[in-house]
Amino acid sequence: MQRALDLAATGAFHRRGGNPRVGCVILDATGAVVGQGHHRGAGTPHAEVAALAVAGPAARGGTAVVTLEPCAHQGRTGPCADALIEAGIARVIFAQPDPNPLAAGGAARLRAAGVTVIGNVGADRAIMINSDWTFAQQHRRPWVRLKIASTLDGRVAAADGSSQWITSTAARADGHLLRARSDAVLAGTGTVLADNPRLTARTVPDSADQQPDQPLRVVFGTTEIPADAAVLDDSAETALLRTRSAPVALRTLRERGVSSVLIEGGPGVAATFLEAGLVDELISYIAPVLLGAGPAAVGDLGIWRIDDALRGEITDITSIGTGTERCARITTRLRTAAPTPDPQHPHSPHHEGDH
Amino acid sequence: MQRALDLAATGAFHRRGGNPRVGCVILDATGAVVGQGHHRGAGTPHAEVAALAVAGPAARGGTAVVTLEPCAHQGRTGPCADALIEAGIARVIFAQPDPNPLAAGGAARLRAAGVTVIGNVGADRAIMINSDWTFAQQHRRPWVRLKIASTLDGRVAAADGSSQWITSTAARADGHLLRARSDAVLAGTGTVLADNPRLTARTVPDSADQQPDQPLRVVFGTTEIPADAAVLDDSAETALLRTRSAPVALRTLRERGVSSVLIEGGPGVAATFLEAGLVDELISYIAPVLLGAGPAAVGDLGIWRIDDALRGEITDITSIGTGTERCARITTRLRTAAPTPDPQHPHSPHHEGDH
Ligand SMILES: NC(=O)c1ccc[n+]([C@@H]2O[C@H](COP(=O)([O-])OP(=O)(O)OC[C@H]3O[C@@H](n4cnc5c(N)ncnc54)[C@H](OP(=O)(O)O)[C@@H]3O)[C@@H](O)[C@H]2O)c1
Ligand SMILES: NC(=O)c1ccc[n+]([C@@H]2O[C@H](COP(=O)([O-])OP(=O)(O)OC[C@H]3O[C@@H](n4cnc5c(N)ncnc54)[C@H](OP(=O)(O)O)[C@@H]3O)[C@@H](O)[C@H]2O)c1
Repeated sequence: MQRALDLAATGAFHRRGGNPRVGCVILDATGAVVGQGHHRGAGTPHAEVAALAVAGPAARGGTAVVTLEPCAHQGRTGPCADALIEAGIARVIFAQPDPNPLAAGGAARLRAAGVTVIGNVGADRAIMINSDWTFAQQHRRPWVRLKIASTLDGRVAAADGSSQWITSTAARADGHLLRARSDAVLAGTGTVLADNPRLTARTVPDSADQQPDQPLRVVFGTTEIPADAAVLDDSAETALLRTRSAPVALRTLRERGVSSVLIEGGPGVAATFLEAGLVDELISYIAPVLLGAGPAAVGDLGIWRIDDALRGEITDITSIGTGTERCARITTRLRTAAPTPDPQHPHSPHHEGDH
Repeated sequence: MQRALDLAATGAFHRRGGNPRVGCVILDATGAVVGQGHHRGAGTPHAEVAALAVAGPAARGGTAVVTLEPCAHQGRTGPCADALIEAGIARVIFAQPDPNPLAAGGAARLRAAGVTVIGNVGADRAIMINSDWTFAQQHRRPWVRLKIASTLDGRVAAADGSSQWITSTAARADGHLLRARSDAVLAGTGTVLADNPRLTARTVPDSADQQPDQPLRVVFGTTEIPADAAVLDDSAETALLRTRSAPVALRTLRERGVSSVLIEGGPGVAATFLEAGLVDELISYIAPVLLGAGPAAVGDLGIWRIDDALRGEITDITSIGTGTERCARITTRLRTAAPTPDPQHPHSPHHEGDH
């Protein structure tokens, strides 16, 4: 299972079009490894199918170790449960159960075919590897991270609107990692007009395989943005949402297979998503800077008294960079609104992704 | 010296009326400890004198180990250098040299009397024990700490002015320790009128000896405050500064023997001291709270562009409390204005404290 999990964790920066990261190892009847595989993205073989292809006839009577309960539904590539049955696999050990209760059933189908099935082996790490996807499956919307880079007095720009740069190179590099790990990066029309950001992930990769697939760039709001805006260049895909509604925006993104979205401001967008109860995690980069004026990190939330404040729980405090470049990164979990049921498919029996 | 330093560090929460914390150990001619003492505050014997009193005639031909260069000036208790000479001490080992170059001379006076003098032994820890006092001696003004308790979006109160409580019990307890370690605690008239704070140090002491002496409470600003304001109760001394000038306020406090002042806001006072370049250290308690409205941590500083921002260096990032009570404490060193020369005594040969 350790090996299967390592396979699943391969290529953290690769988009999977709404699919989870899955690894699979096939052992023959004697317990020798005869095949392994991992899922490389929508439209490509699932991990089990890839591993079975390597194993060939040696899989017969053997064991499949897989990080996610094999799927039972007909997607772009056919149900994996059936592929395992056809290959004559005698035993399946999996880590994470399918998070979507309506789409699950792979284990049951395998058992019905006489296969021995053991689940929940190493499930914690498997769930961690696919935490955004798991959340999206369970709550029918992407996991929402809000990133704010502010001064110690809570400003995200100076009085004249200039905000480049409040934080340090080190903090910005950390922010690019956040982008690389997200399916989509969203900014408001105000920010696009003020800062003309590119919204691409520009990390320094450890290896060629680590070169990130670019997240989907998303512009929130109805204001027209100029045709020569940097966010419209050809370095990545861009979606113009032309809405002021946070739930509508998330529904649209979910339909495009987005499991996690990073909101990069500004205060208007931040307030819109916070007020709707649709921010799961706040990531604050705080720089040793004071401005005394300029826009605050978050626009009006309709809160008047301290008792009505939005409260969360800090889950991580990290120091980023050194010397005058040093910033603090504070991660806060917020309580979010109950998941919105999908009005189109209130009891959809299908995953919205392909797996 | 370790023992002398431990003595000096005794009773961190005891005001010393502008005097440093000093420890002294006397060894007889054979090297046996025959006396020790530490300074207990203005008007009481200096550490050397206290230790000599215990040692009696055994000090003759012996060694005095002291954490600060013995004073050479006539204070309320007479120069320690002379007391050591009269007691027949043959050798003096001290840690921190007198930080005030104009008042120094104890080592020279001892040497002139034939005493062997060795300085700078364990000076780093000695300076740390008296860092505020050392700063005040060298810069002729108190060390200024600004404490701000804010939300993640930089608010120090809600739109209706209510600010109790933004942070957690744990963060407030930490704030009380800051008060206990400061000679004075300062708030603006706006805060006194809005929050009616007591400004006393209410820590949970480890032992009776740790019961803090109360810091001097200071109200900054010209607005009259009501006679029944909590800050005027009899739990501690209070100074009403009736000025809007940060340098004037610090000069007044220095004259009262204050080596360190903790500014507890609000935004108006914070801005006044920051604009004057008179904040040495900023201590930010950041709570996992969002308000979207309400006063920002720091009032207008006359800064328009990001390039003119006030920048410092983060020296510490600490997590305070657990669970939903968890806050972040960020300590930032700010570059401060050059020390203002004392207009009364531009070349005063005396310490302003008693030691
Ligand atoms: N330091 C940082 O982390 C950071 C990050 C980003 C931006 N910034 C700074 O933030 C500033 C821009 O912030 P901003 O607030 O002006 O822009 P913004 O948040 O990027 O854009 C405002 C957004 O709010 C929407 N909106 C306006 N009224 C609304 C309503 N009543 N209900 C729902 N949505 C509504 C707008 O849509 P419409 O187009 O339909 O009006 C738009 O999408 C710039 O100074 C930028 O430098 C700082
Ligand atoms: N969360 C926290 O850490 C915290 C701490 C403290 C306060 N607060 C909140 O802050 C709010 C109060 O803040 P505030 O800014 O109104 O009050 P403040 O900073 O306590 O008081 C304003 C101060 O600025 C002085 N001042 C006014 N104009 C000035 C000028 N032109 N030059 C120099 N000094 C000037 C005033 O003096 P005059 O009297 O002469 O006008 C007064 O001393 C309250 O809501 C309180 O709850 C929060």
